[in-house]
Amino acid sequence: MPAFRTSIHARSLGAATVLTLVARAAQASTDPHGVDLLPILEGLVLILVGAKLGGALFARIGQSPVLGELLAGVLIGNLGLVGFHAFDGLRQDQGLEILAQIGVLFLLFEVGLHSNVQQMLAVGASSMIVAVLGVIAPMVLGYFCSAWFFPAHHVLTHWFVGATLCATSVGITARVLADLDRTTSTEGRIILGAAVIDDVLGLIVLAVVSGIIAAENAGRAFEPMQGLWILLKAVGFLVGAIVIGQWLAKGVFKAAGRLGSQGVLLGVALVLCFSMALLAGKVGLAPIVGAFAAGLILDEAHYQDLRARDKKRRDLAELLEPISAFLVPVFFVLMGMRVDLSVFGNVGVLGFAAVLTVAAVAGKQVCALGVLERGTDRFAVGLGMIPRGEVGLIFAGIGATLHIAGERVVDDAVFSAVVVMIALTTFMTPPLLVWRMGRTKPAG
Amino acid sequence: MPAFRTSIHARSLGAATVLTLVARAAQASTDPHGVDLLPILEGLVLILVGAKLGGALFARIGQSPVLGELLAGVLIGNLGLVGFHAFDGLRQDQGLEILAQIGVLFLLFEVGLHSNVQQMLAVGASSMIVAVLGVIAPMVLGYFCSAWFFPAHHVLTHWFVGATLCATSVGITARVLADLDRTTSTEGRIILGAAVIDDVLGLIVLAVVSGIIAAENAGRAFEPMQGLWILLKAVGFLVGAIVIGQWLAKGVFKAAGRLGSQGVLLGVALVLCFSMALLAGKVGLAPIVGAFAAGLILDEAHYQDLRARDKKRRDLAELLEPISAFLVPVFFVLMGMRVDLSVFGNVGVLGFAAVLTVAAVAGKQVCALGVLERGTDRFAVGLGMIPRGEVGLIFAGIGATLHIAGERVVDDAVFSAVVVMIALTTFMTPPLLVWRMGRTKPAG
Repeated sequence: MPAFRTSIHARSLGAATVLTLVARAAQASTDPHGVDLLPILEGLVLILVGAKLGGALFARIGQSPVLGELLAGVLIGNLGLVGFHAFDGLRQDQGLEILAQIGVLFLLFEVGLHSNVQQMLAVGASSMIVAVLGVIAPMVLGYFCSAWFFPAHHVLTHWFVGATLCATSVGITARVLADLDRTTSTEGRIILGAAVIDDVLGLIVLAVVSGIIAAENAGRAFEPMQGLWILLKAVGFLVGAIVIGQWLAKGVFKAAGRLGSQGVLLGVALVLCFSMALLAGKVGLAPIVGAFAAGLILDEAHYQDLRARDKKRRDLAELLEPISAFLVPVFFVLMGMRVDLSVFGNVGVLGFAAVLTVAAVAGKQVCALGVLERGTDRFAVGLGMIPRGEVGLIFAGIGATLHIAGERVVDDAVFSAVVVMIALTTFMTPPLLVWRMGRTKPAG
Repeated sequence: MPAFRTSIHARSLGAATVLTLVARAAQASTDPHGVDLLPILEGLVLILVGAKLGGALFARIGQSPVLGELLAGVLIGNLGLVGFHAFDGLRQDQGLEILAQIGVLFLLFEVGLHSNVQQMLAVGASSMIVAVLGVIAPMVLGYFCSAWFFPAHHVLTHWFVGATLCATSVGITARVLADLDRTTSTEGRIILGAAVIDDVLGLIVLAVVSGIIAAENAGRAFEPMQGLWILLKAVGFLVGAIVIGQWLAKGVFKAAGRLGSQGVLLGVALVLCFSMALLAGKVGLAPIVGAFAAGLILDEAHYQDLRARDKKRRDLAELLEPISAFLVPVFFVLMGMRVDLSVFGNVGVLGFAAVLTVAAVAGKQVCALGVLERGTDRFAVGLGMIPRGEVGLIFAGIGATLHIAGERVVDDAVFSAVVVMIALTTFMTPPLLVWRMGRTKPAG
């Protein structure tokens, strides 16, 4: 509570200042703790209207609603290009960002709920091969693209550019699979499993490439133990989550059953989801990996007792649906809002961006070779692995701070090209997946 | 997207720095836009566990679950007193604050949904008298308390102390009424209507008292137009919301019906709730007043078509329930966390705090006289008006910045006493209301 006191410390005030204070206090009537809710509400209204209109429009023309949400976001986020700047601040609004991040946790938690550990392990070998191929191939292709466009650059910078192409951003694919009701198809499970492994591999690639560059600069050999430690923590989390998590979830639901009040089922599920997302984040993985794992280990059998006590016998999927309907579009519209169309006006980088995008797409098509199950649509798996997201951006951002032989590892042109590549791969995936998976019968 | 680039601008980096960057990037894997999700997840886990345990415990002993949530918050928020400081940062976490603020919007929106404009207007005269009495009586009592304890202070400081006692904080009462299923009882409607009017009156009191102090300091007469303008905006919003809002809601639902996709009902309701909360905030009222008004004007008749299209024919109350179950406890646990128990150790202020609390409680009991409806439990109305909240804190905070005749209008001792008064009135209301309203039959 003292936070509010220290925020105002004028000594003596004139009438004008008092009226400003009154106006401020009026605005702040919900806000003695430094949060201004009004811009967030403004953003939510715009986002929800855009999401519903865009989603409905694209659903009507047989596309995934997520494409409509993304494009509504692009529209809202780029009104500045036609001179309308009232919404410019929303792109970077921290409140909306938090809601978006929580929204994507709910998406992956729900996707995880539809599947279970056994189903995922059944395609585990394929997921592993798909993930490994999907890291190696784009990395090699990215290396050659960079070497072709920038022959004067250091060889390690080429590898760094390759590294920005590695990590699949699973949010888009998970959402399209959910919209198509195909999360539990063989293709869907292989893609989701590969995306989890991908996140682990991405961490390692980043550690190794950055470590080699740092060692090179310091004139000494690379110390591989750091990469190994990161790997151990991440794998430890995943194995621990599956082995201990399943056993723990059963116990927690049993204990929670004794609480005997309404709403316990949703409460326990939220706690499991958030705590596993937190743990994943603590070991360096994306929190969405933790949320997905939480969904996987939760089994309807665990919570039959609690469900029976709900006055409408709702299962978790039903309870989570309204929360997702509120928060998931925030993630995708905000993602669209962050696409800065002016980058596409930078003709100088478009050539490299185009080549990088082709490398990004082609590299993930190699994944199709890793699918072991007969009768599976390998092409769909390759398409589902296409989207790149914030991890690529983080790689590029770190590359922008690294120097080798006096030259920046990722310069402005390369950074812009990565931004364009991320936008293009994000937007092409929903229509490609709908085209490929939408017409075949769900294999369940 | 460039935000991330500018956040790292080291020129050349050693191996140690690179590893720090890698670790940071790993932590930030969801976070190229400056939000660290992990503390928020940690807070959510603690809050939800505390809320469920505290709520279930208090429900079992026949109390309102909200009291358990508040006390769980006090426990979490004051672990620092026994030397455990790991959670100290959560009290001021902006992410949790945003979720809490959105949570209380959902609470008031739901409460509004249970009622409608006609039902509220039916008790409008009582609500108005209750609100006016509930502002005047505590203000006069507060004046005398201050004059008794601090005879040397300027007369205007006494009025300012009185003003901090005016505004009812409707969140607690709304929640207890909802828990008791009594939101639509005559008593419930009178209290909720009075709380809305109270918010308007509070704004005016603040403007007038601060304006008079500023005028006194400047040696000129107070200009009442400012207060009038604030009043006009607020009343204009409420009348406009009810008249235009009802007509608009019908049209919006009709138009939305043409969208023809799933999830439209919830989407439209959220947009209405958030836009009216935004408008309320823009005219200086609390956003929860807007959310409540949005709930009032929404009538089940408006959305029968949309509901019929839902695969489970869920109404809005059912769709909103899981969202509230997630977000509403965040508000109340965080409110508990912000109670700084160490203030109670400050023996010097406890005397004044006790007198102020008695004045706050006694002042609102006068409200009972304003109830016109026969057969209504007047005492319950008075009890429901007891809680003071953040508005009182805002008043006190502004008073702390104002000076009159060289003396601070609200000094540290008075500020601490206000904090104690808010905590006590917040905690005493749930058991008092449960005692008074819990045993009588719902009249709703």
